[in-house]
Amino acid sequence: MNERNSLRNVNGRLQIGGITCSEVAKKFGTPLYVFDQVKIEDMCSTFVNALNKHYGFGMVSYASKAFCCKEIYRLVNEFGMGADVVSGGELYTALSVNFPCNKLIFHGNNKSYDELEFAVQNNLKYFVIDSIEEANLLNDICSKAGKIQQVLVRVNPGVEAHTHKFIQTAKVDSKFGFSIQDGTALEFIKVLTKMSNLKLVGLHCHIGSQIFEKLSFVLAVEKMTDFYKEIYDSLNLSLEVLDLGGGFGIYYNEEDPKLQLCDYEEYVRVICDTLLECINTKGIKKPYLILEPGRSIVGESGITLYTVGNVKEIKNVKKYVAIDGGMFENPRFALYQAKYEIVSVDKMDEKSTIKYSIAGKCCESGDIIAEDVLLPETKSGDILAVLSTGAYNYSMASNYNRNLVPPVVMVKDGKCKTVVKPQTYQDLIRNDL
Amino acid sequence: MNERNSLRNVNGRLQIGGITCSEVAKKFGTPLYVFDQVKIEDMCSTFVNALNKHYGFGMVSYASKAFCCKEIYRLVNEFGMGADVVSGGELYTALSVNFPCNKLIFHGNNKSYDELEFAVQNNLKYFVIDSIEEANLLNDICSKAGKIQQVLVRVNPGVEAHTHKFIQTAKVDSKFGFSIQDGTALEFIKVLTKMSNLKLVGLHCHIGSQIFEKLSFVLAVEKMTDFYKEIYDSLNLSLEVLDLGGGFGIYYNEEDPKLQLCDYEEYVRVICDTLLECINTKGIKKPYLILEPGRSIVGESGITLYTVGNVKEIKNVKKYVAIDGGMFENPRFALYQAKYEIVSVDKMDEKSTIKYSIAGKCCESGDIIAEDVLLPETKSGDILAVLSTGAYNYSMASNYNRNLVPPVVMVKDGKCKTVVKPQTYQDLIRNDL
Repeated sequence: MNERNSLRNVNGRLQIGGITCSEVAKKFGTPLYVFDQVKIEDMCSTFVNALNKHYGFGMVSYASKAFCCKEIYRLVNEFGMGADVVSGGELYTALSVNFPCNKLIFHGNNKSYDELEFAVQNNLKYFVIDSIEEANLLNDICSKAGKIQQVLVRVNPGVEAHTHKFIQTAKVDSKFGFSIQDGTALEFIKVLTKMSNLKLVGLHCHIGSQIFEKLSFVLAVEKMTDFYKEIYDSLNLSLEVLDLGGGFGIYYNEEDPKLQLCDYEEYVRVICDTLLECINTKGIKKPYLILEPGRSIVGESGITLYTVGNVKEIKNVKKYVAIDGGMFENPRFALYQAKYEIVSVDKMDEKSTIKYSIAGKCCESGDIIAEDVLLPETKSGDILAVLSTGAYNYSMASNYNRNLVPPVVMVKDGKCKTVVKPQTYQDLIRNDL
Repeated sequence: MNERNSLRNVNGRLQIGGITCSEVAKKFGTPLYVFDQVKIEDMCSTFVNALNKHYGFGMVSYASKAFCCKEIYRLVNEFGMGADVVSGGELYTALSVNFPCNKLIFHGNNKSYDELEFAVQNNLKYFVIDSIEEANLLNDICSKAGKIQQVLVRVNPGVEAHTHKFIQTAKVDSKFGFSIQDGTALEFIKVLTKMSNLKLVGLHCHIGSQIFEKLSFVLAVEKMTDFYKEIYDSLNLSLEVLDLGGGFGIYYNEEDPKLQLCDYEEYVRVICDTLLECINTKGIKKPYLILEPGRSIVGESGITLYTVGNVKEIKNVKKYVAIDGGMFENPRFALYQAKYEIVSVDKMDEKSTIKYSIAGKCCESGDIIAEDVLLPETKSGDILAVLSTGAYNYSMASNYNRNLVPPVVMVKDGKCKTVVKPQTYQDLIRNDL
């Protein structure tokens, strides 16, 4: 393992936030999601400070879908951040800790009537409109409620970015938003501006995930500001808000760069500088800038701890290590063949020389967490840590095979607190009749 | 849609179990899992009767992981069937409706100490042993409890079957069980027979999923009985139980054959006849035969109903229909690119001439349920049914994006009953601190 963030190898044992992982595992059991609170806080303040410093007029909004629970809303709120919600459930969770509604943005390609109504009742800051049907629904709801709602429109700027490369596409095939290039975005904006109870204040785009290439963001800013100018020129409409979404990459495995806090500041600086330049060149009004990091806030902050149940050698084929978790609490390998770094928390000084595949406990051959990872010799009872599991692990967890969703623990200064309690068997049949 | 099972097109409207789908959707809302109870009952009785008729000495054990809730255990119990459980959670659910413990079989590649202990306390019929570590754990637990536990061993016969083809492999790469070919199975059996509190009574294999090719089962029976003879010859041990697992295919889409009840009987007949022949030829004792259908019992019995939120055309690229469900309640397209048949429940007499991709409501580009399916012209408010969702949909459902797991309704003779209540927002934060 390469030392990074708050993970430390102390005398051959992995520590997170000042406590050894095996101690945490012993105290709370496994499988277990563990977050380093300081790392989350550092990421929050980095984004917030960078936006203030380099642009001074905007909001960092946490994309809750990466990891949603009461505690994370409390935490990002302490940094004055906003939050994106994508469902009634996320909104409900945010409201349950009195998250300021005037800092909530409602995203999603198919919000239901009930969800829209629920959000309107709670005076959310912005709704990001994704279809004509949604605009009509929301307009009706706001009309009944006697409200004018500020909205953004999701558009596709024709920039699609993934990991280390970016692609500029003329035709964007996406279930989200409206394409700028083919004219549907402008067409839709014309319709929207005639709706009595919706006030169009800006646009939103999201160009991809796990982006490391700054040029992707630069290009997005250029395309978006071009469109802001086009809207001004053709409709005499000066948009006040620009929501550039998220997509900042994190370190999962050796194929990814290791970013420091200053690197994330640099992403924000490049975006802000490009935007300021575009504003000047194109003569458009300086918009309120929204950035929406999710994965980058929580991803590397979280790890998952497992206990090895058995080790099985298929002669001349493979060695399997079976852990007490699996695709029910981390489906990302099954879904995306996502590769993670995995370490044996009490054998940090031993050489990783043996190739293992890490199998989950679900009764399905495809329930694998990692293939062909190098570990020290591994035995039943060893504690393994899968790193960078803070995003899209707990949030995607299921009760597949009626396994229980693991609890979530947050560590700070060597102290642990439970953030999400373990599920119980009773929880599984709560809604059964 | 091709008429099959209890789904009927009555005057252009899809009925399930004697009631129109749109009526069910109106009553219970969408997304909604709907099961035809009679179809489940028919499948249960078909397997049970076929095993009785063609072999007369065995048990059909429902593989709960396909669809697990209280009601399904009640239902299969009415047919005298056993049930497989693969976790403490499934066991807990079965116990909560007083399912007979002497008909429960405990499967899984990595059962925990707590799960094994829980199962031992409840006197389960068989434990299927999957590793030496597990054998040791279980032996210890039984020793403490003063019990002798009957166990099966999971072995790999070197037959791997998928859908329409079968593969005979010398080396089986699987996280499950012990290979017969390379000698590890026999080696393990020798160790196991020396354990004081475990009594080896038979073997278990499971050769794959979605199997239509009878030869796969024939081959498995031949390999397994060869091994029974080998065990008898080399260890003078006459095994009493043979558990051949499941894997019987169902109809998902036009690539699959449409099987009638009599076809499933035919699978069982072929298995039984082959086994009886092998017993005679090889001179081994007639074993108690266990078959473990899961998907085939519930798969085609279930459908999922959705309401269309919006329809979006990406010019010259694609038309998207956005539904109120998604990968949170059916992750099988995202996981396996599984193809389903999809119909518009009130437009059954209209020609399906327009190609749509069906997008879920999760805030993720990959949240697609189906690509390029033909439907009649589709609009917001239309009710769609995805067919054959009875297996591995509800059981794999998550709260991704904090969406709620849909309720489950069972229909019989035109009457509906709720089997699993809808989740509530409160459920989402129940364990949050």
